[in-house]
Amino acid sequence: MSTVAPRLRFRDAQIEMAHGAGGKASRRLVEGLIAPLLLGPNAAELSDAAGVSVNGASLAMTADSFVVKPLRFPGGSIGELAVNGTVNDLAVAAAKPEALVVTYVIEAGLPTEELEAEVRAMAGAAARAGVAIVGGDTKVVEHGKADRMYITTAGIGSPLPGVVLSPRTVRPGDVVMVSGPVGDHGITILLARGELEIEATLASDTRSVFPFVEALAKAAAPGLRWMRDPTRGGVATSLNELARDARLAVILREDSIPVRDPVRGACELLGLDPLHIANEGQFLAVVAPEYAEAALDAIRRAGCHEAAIIGEIREQPAATLLGATAYGGTRVIDMLVGDPLPRIC
Amino acid sequence: MSTVAPRLRFRDAQIEMAHGAGGKASRRLVEGLIAPLLLGPNAAELSDAAGVSVNGASLAMTADSFVVKPLRFPGGSIGELAVNGTVNDLAVAAAKPEALVVTYVIEAGLPTEELEAEVRAMAGAAARAGVAIVGGDTKVVEHGKADRMYITTAGIGSPLPGVVLSPRTVRPGDVVMVSGPVGDHGITILLARGELEIEATLASDTRSVFPFVEALAKAAAPGLRWMRDPTRGGVATSLNELARDARLAVILREDSIPVRDPVRGACELLGLDPLHIANEGQFLAVVAPEYAEAALDAIRRAGCHEAAIIGEIREQPAATLLGATAYGGTRVIDMLVGDPLPRIC
Repeated sequence: MSTVAPRLRFRDAQIEMAHGAGGKASRRLVEGLIAPLLLGPNAAELSDAAGVSVNGASLAMTADSFVVKPLRFPGGSIGELAVNGTVNDLAVAAAKPEALVVTYVIEAGLPTEELEAEVRAMAGAAARAGVAIVGGDTKVVEHGKADRMYITTAGIGSPLPGVVLSPRTVRPGDVVMVSGPVGDHGITILLARGELEIEATLASDTRSVFPFVEALAKAAAPGLRWMRDPTRGGVATSLNELARDARLAVILREDSIPVRDPVRGACELLGLDPLHIANEGQFLAVVAPEYAEAALDAIRRAGCHEAAIIGEIREQPAATLLGATAYGGTRVIDMLVGDPLPRIC
Repeated sequence: MSTVAPRLRFRDAQIEMAHGAGGKASRRLVEGLIAPLLLGPNAAELSDAAGVSVNGASLAMTADSFVVKPLRFPGGSIGELAVNGTVNDLAVAAAKPEALVVTYVIEAGLPTEELEAEVRAMAGAAARAGVAIVGGDTKVVEHGKADRMYITTAGIGSPLPGVVLSPRTVRPGDVVMVSGPVGDHGITILLARGELEIEATLASDTRSVFPFVEALAKAAAPGLRWMRDPTRGGVATSLNELARDARLAVILREDSIPVRDPVRGACELLGLDPLHIANEGQFLAVVAPEYAEAALDAIRRAGCHEAAIIGEIREQPAATLLGATAYGGTRVIDMLVGDPLPRIC
């Protein structure tokens, strides 16, 4: 703990929904207030899995709270998100998920069957992800002091051998890939709320990405530079962070990014960019060019049939995410601003 | 994960405040529904720190959510509770707290200064406890969907050498000790709510108990059988669990249990038993009789000046907590039933 009081840059008078949306406002809150106080000036980002050494063993550790609304939606529920979200934070830190702990904050009056459904969903997701749930806690608050239930999971994992991930290892010429179609989760939640006059066959992509990460690491460990699961804030926010942290340009070939028709349609209707929509079962990877083919092949064979190379790293314009169209145009793609889709996970 | 569907004994139709109070109803929910589904039939209790092996290293892992109301009270605040609570769960599992992760669920509209105060409180408590906060997450829910903020902490620790804790190692003749006065935290919260016409000089006991546990382990490791931090449900609930799990009797000498006057007074006024009131900076230990004096001396010298031997283990009546008065009378002391003090931590 530093004895020098950190300078806090966060000046907003109160906390708003956008501070939890995963985009620019979240960054400002975490980097301007929480991380400097809790983690000190040289902190890694609060949202990443952290490396910890205990009893001579290296491990990764992470935690996430889940407040998604509604609790259940096509393709999953809060319980599955809570397991897969923490599993995926470990996976993209190149750690094999080993154990989870779980806590529930429950609103008094919740029907037991709703709790039971989520506990069962968590047990199933944990079994599918090959991770043990080893403990936890339950709190109950008065009716009206929570929205049915909030779930928090924390997890530890063991580092995959031979993988060193850091934006500092990213080089011009490196290749950017995504494991599958983007935006399914966020648009599914939006539709599940029933506030839109849109009918679409779409389901959340919630799943553990660890099997794909493991296959990728086996095929391309020496060339694997960076990974991230683009949840809140979407692909655009994750890649903006990469561009900023690496001080390089990330250039996307926009027509190579897989987006399902219902996601594209809903986004057009709502004026949203699919690259800002949350995913819960996809990951981004940056790979050295000589490993790109092997890497893509490995994650496709592991089950990500729609995985694609979507862009590359360049020197300039530094710290910028650019989208390039097939017609030769480019646009600067910003992080998510505001909170168009609250409580998405 | 067992493939045999567990039989669920929990039959309540909905979740009520008492299910989060740490007493009998909490037991029924955890043991009758959550633990069988998540942890399998041979699960340790969900509320304890669990032993995990990662990369060849043994460690302990635990998580707790904190929903205390009000956020700040004499002697501490939700931030300090959130650090010390998880630190203490590790400590009483005979593990040295190594790293924490923290998540916030924040109600939109919370003044930033309230969040900042709790983040600072956590940083201070972590520094005092010698534990690193290494990561976390922040979610925001709409105004009216949380009560200011809820905090969850998860922690890992490294086992103290030479200590094997289990109710199964407890033997008749073993000695029960407590680290200090009981009930300070719970009554402090009750008074801080201002719903009672009582004025009292009292503060929460929230603190890390690890230094005392470490001193105890150094002095008495081979004779140390069992420890617990008697939070929700108090000393009576923890010792009932011990009696039940060990299939032995725990006999308390009631006049030897340290209770401050304001706690005793408030309890008398409210018809509460100090043994049911939550503590956040005390622990219970069961020690073999030949180590009792050294153990008590060690935790007193480490700073628990009011630590006391409060009872002993006997064969009969099995699975029962008995209180014995100075006049020779005895009473059966039950676990906490209902929820007289909601949202105490």
